[in-house]
Amino acid sequence: MAFAARGIAPLEAPRNAFLKTLKLSRAFTLLEPGPVVLVTTFDGTKNNIMTVSWTMVMDFTPRFALTTGAWNHSYAALRKFKECVIAVPTVDLLDTVVGIGTCSGSDTDKFAKFKLTPFASKLVGAPSILECLANIECKVVDILKKHDIVVLEAVHARIDATRKERRNLHAVGDGTFVVDGRKLDRRKLMASKLPPGL
Amino acid sequence: MAFAARGIAPLEAPRNAFLKTLKLSRAFTLLEPGPVVLVTTFDGTKNNIMTVSWTMVMDFTPRFALTTGAWNHSYAALRKFKECVIAVPTVDLLDTVVGIGTCSGSDTDKFAKFKLTPFASKLVGAPSILECLANIECKVVDILKKHDIVVLEAVHARIDATRKERRNLHAVGDGTFVVDGRKLDRRKLMASKLPPGL
Repeated sequence: MAFAARGIAPLEAPRNAFLKTLKLSRAFTLLEPGPVVLVTTFDGTKNNIMTVSWTMVMDFTPRFALTTGAWNHSYAALRKFKECVIAVPTVDLLDTVVGIGTCSGSDTDKFAKFKLTPFASKLVGAPSILECLANIECKVVDILKKHDIVVLEAVHARIDATRKERRNLHAVGDGTFVVDGRKLDRRKLMASKLPPGL
Repeated sequence: MAFAARGIAPLEAPRNAFLKTLKLSRAFTLLEPGPVVLVTTFDGTKNNIMTVSWTMVMDFTPRFALTTGAWNHSYAALRKFKECVIAVPTVDLLDTVVGIGTCSGSDTDKFAKFKLTPFASKLVGAPSILECLANIECKVVDILKKHDIVVLEAVHARIDATRKERRNLHAVGDGTFVVDGRKLDRRKLMASKLPPGL
């Protein structure tokens, strides 16, 4: 009912076939490389999206930290509903990521403006974004007001298993972005340090 | 005197010519892309280094957050002396980064084992690392024990201005690493959102 009220629905076949549930024990690997992400919220009436580069993995549960505060329009919804989705964009979405980061949900429907498709998340009211590589549904477990840190716990994660473009974007913070390059494998050397069940 | 006691000294000419002081207002751009970093501490007797991927920019001052706790040998020195250096390695140091992350300062002199050159930092007792691209000297301003978050404030930053290899490494968390690829420029579009004086 809540979903219908804001005009988004669970994805139906065949589009839902692309989405695979990702084990929660692997979800931290989406954020550990430090990509710029899109964070969605729902304020009871409207969906919104913000671009965020200030995130951190806190454990393998996984918990994540996010630096945000009243200067972001999404903050009020985050505080009130204590839910969000961290959507991971790829390099083809660079101008969308920049556009979302340079306008405000106070006067803009960002899903409409940037032609993004919201779909119903499994366990939170904030929407997932179809065009992103992955969507991590999160509950707010703490807000550290003194430092403007929001502590999140992931409760569900889905990834587009068929997508060809999988390269993250990393914001430098000066208006430039670095795209993922080569991948190097040190799994054997690091075996003793990797969490079980990865 | 303290420096002499632990056998490291300020860099002398000609090696110090490579190092340029980086404006503190730009130091956040070293961590915002989410690189894996090396964090040094000094415990009153010995220097140590840990590999850390769980960091976050908190503001442009800049302040940084770091997730760490008693499970890291460096944590005791961080708590006691409230200082560290965040050194930013590049892709040529991958095996050093992995090696440092898979042994402990409790029984290993990591500077000696990995043939790294410590040199005296300007404003903190923890050493800087000559082989890294940049060294950000930090003071601990808060420790959020409930969440194992250490809040740092950068007080000085130096960068190797002549180094050819400048590509960061991004830990995925499963034993693989992504190397920086292409850089994309959206400075004009983002001008309204960039901090002044950058």
